[in-house]
Amino acid sequence: MISQALKPYVIGLDLGGTNSVFGIVDSRGDIKATTAIKTQSYSQVSEYVDASIDALQIIIDQVGGIDKIKAMGIGAPNANFYKGTIEYAPNLVWGHECVVPLAEMFSQKLGIPVAITNDANAAAIGEMTYGVARGMKNFIMLTLGTGVGSGIVINGQLVYGCDGFAGELGHVIMRRENGRLCGCGRTGCLEAYCSATGVARTAREFLSTSNEPSLLRDMKPEDITSFDVSVAAGKGDELAKRVYDFTGEMLGEACADFAAFASPEAFVFFGGLTKAGDLIMDPIKKSYDEHVFHTFRGKAQFLISGLDGSSAAVLGASAIGWDIQE
Amino acid sequence: MISQALKPYVIGLDLGGTNSVFGIVDSRGDIKATTAIKTQSYSQVSEYVDASIDALQIIIDQVGGIDKIKAMGIGAPNANFYKGTIEYAPNLVWGHECVVPLAEMFSQKLGIPVAITNDANAAAIGEMTYGVARGMKNFIMLTLGTGVGSGIVINGQLVYGCDGFAGELGHVIMRRENGRLCGCGRTGCLEAYCSATGVARTAREFLSTSNEPSLLRDMKPEDITSFDVSVAAGKGDELAKRVYDFTGEMLGEACADFAAFASPEAFVFFGGLTKAGDLIMDPIKKSYDEHVFHTFRGKAQFLISGLDGSSAAVLGASAIGWDIQE
Repeated sequence: MISQALKPYVIGLDLGGTNSVFGIVDSRGDIKATTAIKTQSYSQVSEYVDASIDALQIIIDQVGGIDKIKAMGIGAPNANFYKGTIEYAPNLVWGHECVVPLAEMFSQKLGIPVAITNDANAAAIGEMTYGVARGMKNFIMLTLGTGVGSGIVINGQLVYGCDGFAGELGHVIMRRENGRLCGCGRTGCLEAYCSATGVARTAREFLSTSNEPSLLRDMKPEDITSFDVSVAAGKGDELAKRVYDFTGEMLGEACADFAAFASPEAFVFFGGLTKAGDLIMDPIKKSYDEHVFHTFRGKAQFLISGLDGSSAAVLGASAIGWDIQE
Repeated sequence: MISQALKPYVIGLDLGGTNSVFGIVDSRGDIKATTAIKTQSYSQVSEYVDASIDALQIIIDQVGGIDKIKAMGIGAPNANFYKGTIEYAPNLVWGHECVVPLAEMFSQKLGIPVAITNDANAAAIGEMTYGVARGMKNFIMLTLGTGVGSGIVINGQLVYGCDGFAGELGHVIMRRENGRLCGCGRTGCLEAYCSATGVARTAREFLSTSNEPSLLRDMKPEDITSFDVSVAAGKGDELAKRVYDFTGEMLGEACADFAAFASPEAFVFFGGLTKAGDLIMDPIKKSYDEHVFHTFRGKAQFLISGLDGSSAAVLGASAIGWDIQE
């Protein structure tokens, strides 16, 4: 407690392919100061880190200097928690062909401990620290965005596995025959159906295999996004609602399998698809109840992230900072 | 260390529907004394516990008295680790209609801490304490017997979930369409295919859907057991070997999904089916390599239990005793 009183803040970095957003956060999850740089503007990681430090220095000074800061947490693609590295991240100009020891680089410049993990794990820790999973020891976070990511908490700890990369629930197989091609090169992955792109694809499939009237027919099929589907569903479009039913049913089936593994007290959903609210959550819950092994029935809550969407990634990243064992 | 020197033993109880086998075990997994009673001979749990204590007293005296014993571990069906109970166990005369606080009952009679968990979890702890998973922090135990059970270790701890019942990997769904009916009432569970009964059923299916010659045709289909399949396969019977290929392929696919969850350093297999050796392990490994998400490829070992089959259950149960926090 003394250390938290003396060093009341952590730095969070949400490192995306386009933007890098920094926040200085207190233990209640209040963001005290924030800044950002363009991730893409630097061809070398050393330049990226130098530019980050320059931007950070200003907000560090705003909160009283580096002595007020306990640690830094980074949420980034292809992050290896154990090694503190980003490994062959296809979307990072300075990181797609190599292993970047990013935690160590920031730690040397700032003089504080730095940890790094992937976005979905950061989201799970953020939810456990500041959000709807506060106090929970066993829950599964599913991030429904461009892809389907996951962060798994068991016995109060993030599951990293033997290599630091555990928790790729977007890549469990939901269709073993005639499954959709996934970005990972395999077929039938959960992500191929239940990501934002998967939802748009389901809509296009439903449109092409029926003559059912739909607001979505006013668009070119290739232009339809998951956002368009949610807008149509919000207006009562039956086909669009069936897209959510289909997506939610599959998520419910997947969660039923995850329960057989971990028997979590909650599934927490995060990301664009959750904006559809009951349209997606109701079929998830219904399908889960129908499919789950009897022992686990009625035990798990289904929750939507409690963190504000625009700052959730920075909060999640910052939350890793509190957990660092010095 | 002092406590272990003063109390060098734990008691293990392998509580099955027919027999209850007790062993007194040291920290290296040597069984110093053993005894057994018939589980079925008692209609009341109090009689069962009294008979157990009478039998135990003799072997406790053999090792120098109760002061030499740190704790007792019980492996039992439908065991709830958190509550120390057996809950509605269909195979137990005195336990199929109620919740039995068995850990507390033994603890009161013996004056030592007692913990209880299901057989597969006990097997996993046994493997971690005395067997091939010694020193591992992340592994998954799959018991291939009458059913398919599992014990999952993450960050060095057994996964119990929010209710004490996590780790039912025999009941993840492997066939979502036209799946086999499982004993749990759902269809397509791993257990319906990869248990001993599942293997016999696969053999009957293969026999009935082809005219391929097979040694198994000398038997009545309904009499075929997984043991018969292994004997035929051992003699080079092609159909019997294909039964193992089919079973191993499905186990490999299932393990690929489990890797996406936990990225374990090993899968440890236990039970009758493992006696088939490479006949089952080779197709498991091949299928796993084909199906696993690229990040996890080549990282997990596939091992057969290192514990002697006849004493493995007692050893596993006893191993829980070392873990009890007093």
